[in-house]
Amino acid sequence: MNSQFKHIGIVPRPETPHIQETIHTLVTFLKEKQLDIYLDESAVKDGSACDEDIEVCHISDKSNMGKQCDLVIVLGGDGTFLSVARIIAPFRVPIIGVNQGHLGFLTQVQREKMVVTLNGMLTGKYLPEERILLETSLIRNGEVATTSFALNDVVVSRGGAGQMIEFEVFIDREFVYTQRSDGLIVSTPTGSTAYALAAGGPIMQASLRAFTLVPICPQSMTNRPIAIADTCEIEILITKSGDARVHFDGQSFVDVQNFDRIKIHRYRHPLRVLHPTDYQYYKTLRQKLHWGEQLV
Amino acid sequence: MNSQFKHIGIVPRPETPHIQETIHTLVTFLKEKQLDIYLDESAVKDGSACDEDIEVCHISDKSNMGKQCDLVIVLGGDGTFLSVARIIAPFRVPIIGVNQGHLGFLTQVQREKMVVTLNGMLTGKYLPEERILLETSLIRNGEVATTSFALNDVVVSRGGAGQMIEFEVFIDREFVYTQRSDGLIVSTPTGSTAYALAAGGPIMQASLRAFTLVPICPQSMTNRPIAIADTCEIEILITKSGDARVHFDGQSFVDVQNFDRIKIHRYRHPLRVLHPTDYQYYKTLRQKLHWGEQLV
Amino acid sequence: MNSQFKHIGIVPRPETPHIQETIHTLVTFLKEKQLDIYLDESAVKDGSACDEDIEVCHISDKSNMGKQCDLVIVLGGDGTFLSVARIIAPFRVPIIGVNQGHLGFLTQVQREKMVVTLNGMLTGKYLPEERILLETSLIRNGEVATTSFALNDVVVSRGGAGQMIEFEVFIDREFVYTQRSDGLIVSTPTGSTAYALAAGGPIMQASLRAFTLVPICPQSMTNRPIAIADTCEIEILITKSGDARVHFDGQSFVDVQNFDRIKIHRYRHPLRVLHPTDYQYYKTLRQKLHWGEQLV
Amino acid sequence: MNSQFKHIGIVPRPETPHIQETIHTLVTFLKEKQLDIYLDESAVKDGSACDEDIEVCHISDKSNMGKQCDLVIVLGGDGTFLSVARIIAPFRVPIIGVNQGHLGFLTQVQREKMVVTLNGMLTGKYLPEERILLETSLIRNGEVATTSFALNDVVVSRGGAGQMIEFEVFIDREFVYTQRSDGLIVSTPTGSTAYALAAGGPIMQASLRAFTLVPICPQSMTNRPIAIADTCEIEILITKSGDARVHFDGQSFVDVQNFDRIKIHRYRHPLRVLHPTDYQYYKTLRQKLHWGEQLV
Repeated sequence: MNSQFKHIGIVPRPETPHIQETIHTLVTFLKEKQLDIYLDESAVKDGSACDEDIEVCHISDKSNMGKQCDLVIVLGGDGTFLSVARIIAPFRVPIIGVNQGHLGFLTQVQREKMVVTLNGMLTGKYLPEERILLETSLIRNGEVATTSFALNDVVVSRGGAGQMIEFEVFIDREFVYTQRSDGLIVSTPTGSTAYALAAGGPIMQASLRAFTLVPICPQSMTNRPIAIADTCEIEILITKSGDARVHFDGQSFVDVQNFDRIKIHRYRHPLRVLHPTDYQYYKTLRQKLHWGEQLV
Repeated sequence: MNSQFKHIGIVPRPETPHIQETIHTLVTFLKEKQLDIYLDESAVKDGSACDEDIEVCHISDKSNMGKQCDLVIVLGGDGTFLSVARIIAPFRVPIIGVNQGHLGFLTQVQREKMVVTLNGMLTGKYLPEERILLETSLIRNGEVATTSFALNDVVVSRGGAGQMIEFEVFIDREFVYTQRSDGLIVSTPTGSTAYALAAGGPIMQASLRAFTLVPICPQSMTNRPIAIADTCEIEILITKSGDARVHFDGQSFVDVQNFDRIKIHRYRHPLRVLHPTDYQYYKTLRQKLHWGEQLV
Repeated sequence: MNSQFKHIGIVPRPETPHIQETIHTLVTFLKEKQLDIYLDESAVKDGSACDEDIEVCHISDKSNMGKQCDLVIVLGGDGTFLSVARIIAPFRVPIIGVNQGHLGFLTQVQREKMVVTLNGMLTGKYLPEERILLETSLIRNGEVATTSFALNDVVVSRGGAGQMIEFEVFIDREFVYTQRSDGLIVSTPTGSTAYALAAGGPIMQASLRAFTLVPICPQSMTNRPIAIADTCEIEILITKSGDARVHFDGQSFVDVQNFDRIKIHRYRHPLRVLHPTDYQYYKTLRQKLHWGEQLV
Repeated sequence: MNSQFKHIGIVPRPETPHIQETIHTLVTFLKEKQLDIYLDESAVKDGSACDEDIEVCHISDKSNMGKQCDLVIVLGGDGTFLSVARIIAPFRVPIIGVNQGHLGFLTQVQREKMVVTLNGMLTGKYLPEERILLETSLIRNGEVATTSFALNDVVVSRGGAGQMIEFEVFIDREFVYTQRSDGLIVSTPTGSTAYALAAGGPIMQASLRAFTLVPICPQSMTNRPIAIADTCEIEILITKSGDARVHFDGQSFVDVQNFDRIKIHRYRHPLRVLHPTDYQYYKTLRQKLHWGEQLV
């Protein structure tokens, strides 16, 4: 049976032990299928890929794969997956995560079973899932200073000065509250099992069309996590910035100043993640969170 | 201008100070509008209504108002509102709550402004809001033993013996976890500011199409609140019941036994609540939860 | 070397698989040492002890062992340990816990190593530890209605009616707060890893001379756990009892009524627990709570 | 009656509205009593003190008042109080806090009643209270790099990079756990109602001889707050520092590096705080935390 996908991007996690072997196995497999392969140049630069593989692949870059590929395969953990997802999101290219040892929430294909699993997935044996992304605009002096995506969370938080920050929150232009805290996490369901969980937020089923606003160490004990529809626009007006920053998936950030407005809404295109057919959402939660198993 | 509603049900909170006066003001106002009034018989039995009002009203019962009325007005707090909402929900009759002193999440019309506010609302000046309800079936030995509605929450919880109970949870027939705890709260957004909040659950925006599952004092610290889409079916299989019960809005309950299955899903008809036009959801939250106000 | 202890009580957990074997091994070992053995009569009644062991032991009862023995050995889990501890506490007899499979916070001797471990402990190779107990008096109409001990916790909590209860709390006769909640846990450090932890209380180092007051699902989010010195007297005045009860270690309880006063203070004698010499308090916490291990 | 104290230090909060008036009232009152006054030089520099007051006072500095004075009066909020307390702690000089508007946990004398209250306190009408302080040594490459005091808390926390830090915790040289989190708060009872409370820690009665270790957004949900005796030595070994810092009362900090050891123990001298005779600890808690009042 033929592959549904013809142009495959590969993004390995940089400087990862044994990744060369994984890349080689994957490239060999895809070449046998006569598919067109785009390898992220970071794998060339840091020596992750062997010469033999480099020869048979187009050397590309994450930021171009959205245009060049009709499928991107990430070799790494959830961190690598997040970094690729933010970049290819605008191009609506589906993404598959192959974990390098530990099961991830997003990287569900096991390295040991990579070839046999991908063999099925390329021919349509997969469970597609849409994950919402956050699009954030930082407004300074009435102008958009910067725009960013996040798959997990947008976090406004204090820096190293150790002082709480203050801000006002609006949802769909309605005033919600003034908060004094270490910061605020705006999380997607995908991010609800990451930093938002550590800060006391609820777990949100991956497919729920909702965001949560989770305060980080708020001064007032009544400032509790709030879940809202993903059609809402959130606006955070910074009133006492201190050395605050806005972080995107904990991987990039920008500094914020007093009276900056941070506008956050659902990005119009969801991310399309392909899972193996034996994917079970709650099983992953159980394994990652050490939940009680069913009595047999 | 004419009233959109012709047959108005009135349900006052039983044995409430000064309620006779409120009833009288409301009945007089509605009679002037030449509307048909159905007064809950509890108001006759406990002497809440004066003879003059009893004469001009049909004496009815909450359970019949769904058929007889095209609007039901509750005079009381959120507790009275809940008790009426569960009963009239199947009939899709809209409901208005007039609080008797304290602002309620659901009873937004202030007694002091009742006549002027209702005058506007009867002619269409209102904000309609749909609230989801939970429909619960208790399955024993393969048969439906009982069916109930809830607007706030369905709570499976231990009784007075002081022993934790054990159960398995399934969502859309997929196994989620085994839990040992004091119980589990399945809450609507409406209930998210009630018992679920006390147990550590998130606040859910009233219009969010979601439920939360909030464990009560779970033995395992990783059993955290989960928010799921309101299209899901939840099933709780009791494996160690002790003296557990299922409670509906904290107002009625049934005993449960080992191997009972409690199936919970969204009721097909939402409740239609009418709010005054100055209703602001987050303002109510701020007032009830003592959240920080905007700096002026 | 000779045993420091001459009169040894044995209390096995009732109806426990393979307990007969454990009892037999223990009795044989103690008889070889020519020690005087008192076996709890429950082990005779439920067939836990074999005839051979019954013949060589005095058949006694937990409630007499405080007077008869200079050491009591519990065969079972933390639950059995608690039930024995409350009974022998007034007699200041030391206690050793032999767990029947799972490591316990209190039952630190492993069944598999029981003989070799006890061989050392009888000759003085043990780590003694003092644990504080709670003494509770229920005052009704100005008179002491009942007095009880607890090693873990005293819990005032609602029953099966599903309504919150209300009470006032005083510490050393100073008013602390009025609370509306599912109940209140007064916990020792020993109990801080049990029910109090499930309700959101802090872990208290076993040797800390303190109690915690941990609210169960309080209506007000500002009612947080409080740690106080173990020299304090706590008084709980019930103002809306509903179907509330006071529970002692989750193993016995009494009903409470409106205006009952529950007075709780440290019992004048601590419990003397003997641990094996390799006992490490934080290691037990790590194992029971799945805390991160040191990187090697 | 004569004053128990002869040499009075005054430290006003810098740049505070209406503070000149308060200083003048206080200086006039103390001069009438013919007491020796030491005024913090910051009040001269920022113009808080009027010329008339400057003339009749010795101009001193917080750091000298420990030697010069037998009482220090702080005019300001809890923040000013903390900054003075850390400096005078080694000299065992008692301290009185006069709040400038809002009741503080530490600044219990009301500005409006300052003269009449102090009049009593100087002649012995006060409630003395001892508060424990934390002494921290940062050990780098086997040498003490820095030593600091804190009255509220010592906080190891990440900076602005947004990455969790990692460290190992030891109590009395026994390994407790490895933690990955935003940081760790080591709090005194005094600090338990400050940042530690925002991070989920318990309230500790002011007189309790204990510390709490409160994790900030720990990755593992089983890393809960722990209360330990104040005789313990805590050691935090930094294994992944990122841009971490150690903060003292949120008012000063030092950077930390990988393999730094942060040793924390109770300072040998407690701080001696003098309260007005109508001081009630739990009343302050109720007012600051909006706890339920007693039903009358």
